[in-house]
This record gives sequence, C-alpha cells and structure tokens, in this order.
Amino acid sequence: MAAVADSGRRPGRPRDTTIDERALAATRELLVRRGFEATTIQSVAEHAGVHSSALYRRWPSRIELIAEATFPGLDQHAVEPTGQLSADLRRFARAYLAAFTTPVARAAAAGLLAHNQSSSRPRSPELTLRVSARPQFHAILRAAPPEHVDPAVDPDDVFDMLLGAILARVLLPGATARRTPVERTVGLIIRLLAPVS
Amino acid sequence: MAAVADSGRRPGRPRDTTIDERALAATRELLVRRGFEATTIQSVAEHAGVHSSALYRRWPSRIELIAEATFPGLDQHAVEPTGQLSADLRRFARAYLAAFTTPVARAAAAGLLAHNQSSSRPRSPELTLRVSARPQFHAILRAAPPEHVDPAVDPDDVFDMLLGAILARVLLPGATARRTPVERTVGLIIRLLAPVS
Repeated sequence: MAAVADSGRRPGRPRDTTIDERALAATRELLVRRGFEATTIQSVAEHAGVHSSALYRRWPSRIELIAEATFPGLDQHAVEPTGQLSADLRRFARAYLAAFTTPVARAAAAGLLAHNQSSSRPRSPELTLRVSARPQFHAILRAAPPEHVDPAVDPDDVFDMLLGAILARVLLPGATARRTPVERTVGLIIRLLAPVS
Repeated sequence: MAAVADSGRRPGRPRDTTIDERALAATRELLVRRGFEATTIQSVAEHAGVHSSALYRRWPSRIELIAEATFPGLDQHAVEPTGQLSADLRRFARAYLAAFTTPVARAAAAGLLAHNQSSSRPRSPELTLRVSARPQFHAILRAAPPEHVDPAVDPDDVFDMLLGAILARVLLPGATARRTPVERTVGLIIRLLAPVS
C-alpha cells in the first residue's frame, strides 16, 4: 500500500503524516456526506482542523487530494500473488472492483472523470495511474506457471482489457448484458493469456 | 441508424419528426456551447423554439433527451458486416470510438455517468443500451467464417470486453499504458474469439 500511495512523492519532502491522514479522512467523509462539488480544499481544511496552506503544500488542488482519498491503493493482502493464476486473478479482480465501488469511490468517480474530460491542464500521471494497479497485475503474471502465459501477448494490453471490463461494470451496469459474475471476466483474461497451441 | 434510434419507441405513438430533430439539434448545440448542467428541458425548448410540454411528451427528462442527442447510433455503413472478421471489427471499433469522442459525447458523457451513479430511479434500459451497439457486434460475428469464432465463447462477454476497452480509452486515457492503436484492441478481441485448437 505504502509503495502505491507514495509513488508520486518527491524524496526528502518533510511530512507530518497526522495532517495527511486527517485530511484524507475528512475528504472521504465530505465526499460521501456532501458530494464531489462540496469537497473543496477549504471545506476539507475546516473539517480536518488544519490550515488550507498545509493542504496546498501536499496536493496541488482538490482533484489530487480527492483522487488519493478515493483510491488509496489495493489491499496488498488481496493481490499478493500465489502462483495460482486463476485464483490470483480472481482475488485481484474482486479487490479492484471493490476499490471502485466503495461509497467514497462512487461519490468521487464521475467528478474525477468529468475533470479528466474537461481539463486542459496536462493530466497528472499520479492521478490516473493510481487507479490502475498495473504493477500488481504484472506481479501476478510473473508468479504464474509459464505455460499459462503466452510471451507473445503484451501484458499491458491484457491489463487494459481488465481495467476496461471493471470500468464498464462500475460505470455502465445497464449496458453490460447482464450482471455477469466476475469469474467470467477472469475466464476471458485467462483465455487471452493462454498460449495458442 | 433508424433502427437503433427508434428501438425504444412505443409503436403507434404519433410523431412530428420536425420537433424531434430540432430538439435533438438544439440539445447537441447547448451541450457543446454551455455544457451538461445548462442543458435543461427549458433551455432546449427555448433554443429549439418548441414548447417544453412537447419535449416532455417525447422524453421523460433531460437525461433521456441528452442520451439520445449524444448517441444517435453508429453509422450503419461503418458497421455493415462483410464477413472479413478482422476488417469488420476494426471498422466497428473505430466507429464506436468515434461515437464516444465527438465534442457532444465528450460534453455529455461524464454528466450521464454521474446521473447513472447517483440516480435512485431504476435505470432506463434505452439510456444505457443506446451506447452499446451490441446487435451490430453480433451481426459481425454471424457473418464471420465459423472457424474464427469459437461457439464456446459467449459473444456477449466478448462484447462487454470491447465496450470496456473503448470506455477505458475514452475516460481514462492516462491509465492505459500508452496510446495503443485500436488495432491492438481488435487483435485481442480476435484472440478471444478464436477456437482453442
């Protein structure tokens, strides 16, 4: 978790982690209680009892603060690879889906996506990569028996498919034909990875 | 196009298509010029020069009106199957991606998704299925040589993967590893469909 949450930090920056934690907790609470629009740096500062300048030192804008509060990273326990490809992918897909469907994520997701669509600023890689969990997916494939993973398939392409399947499930529940169990998505991912014999 | 656009209509309802077209055109213009929030039934009625009651007779709320104006359906020419699976899927994926990335769709997508997430009303199937183009995908598979399509694979599952891949590409451009050409996504879809020999 720490590795994911801290990946965007500059080294050597002094940190008071109490303020970080209070700000993130206040952000989550405001998102659920009052929604995306009302979750401003000012309202988080008031709610957390810190100065807004302390927040601006840590996050360039409320967008990055909300993104970090919303997607703190996947549960490492849930995605630690065991070498059992099918079981590992199932736990990974479930943990990933769970991260997207918390009340906090539901309150924040559309607002973050709208910002992504409308923003003319260059996108922060941290903001969008945070939700991707790509490294964990790579680790699962590395731990799998080689006969289950075709080296000719680009794992990044397969990860993008999985990310998309989860996104569609979360954002367009009515457009997917029916509530398919996550096992079916995992089954397709395994089929994609399998060597063509 | 007509088949898709009219799929949600009750038979026998009297229609003045002039009003429909004016309302849809006004909605598209307002979305791009003033954004999702400003695109209300009232503002569309004023802009189109029609009574708002005429709009309410056609669409239950601005959400359905915006959905129809935003995703009028795919270009039938682009998705007519030829039997060449790879070429057909490539044209389909491109047309689908294009439908999601018009200025109108970009202006409306996040707002529609936010509504989907927050609405406690049962979702209108028309609203979400309109963007899915599932029937065209089925037609492409039916036209393909049987040796390219494993009957053991559920086409709906594969379509959901393609929908997700396109959605991720549109909504999370920073989370996909790099700007992959649509051919790579199509390549994975063909791999999913191929019989495991």
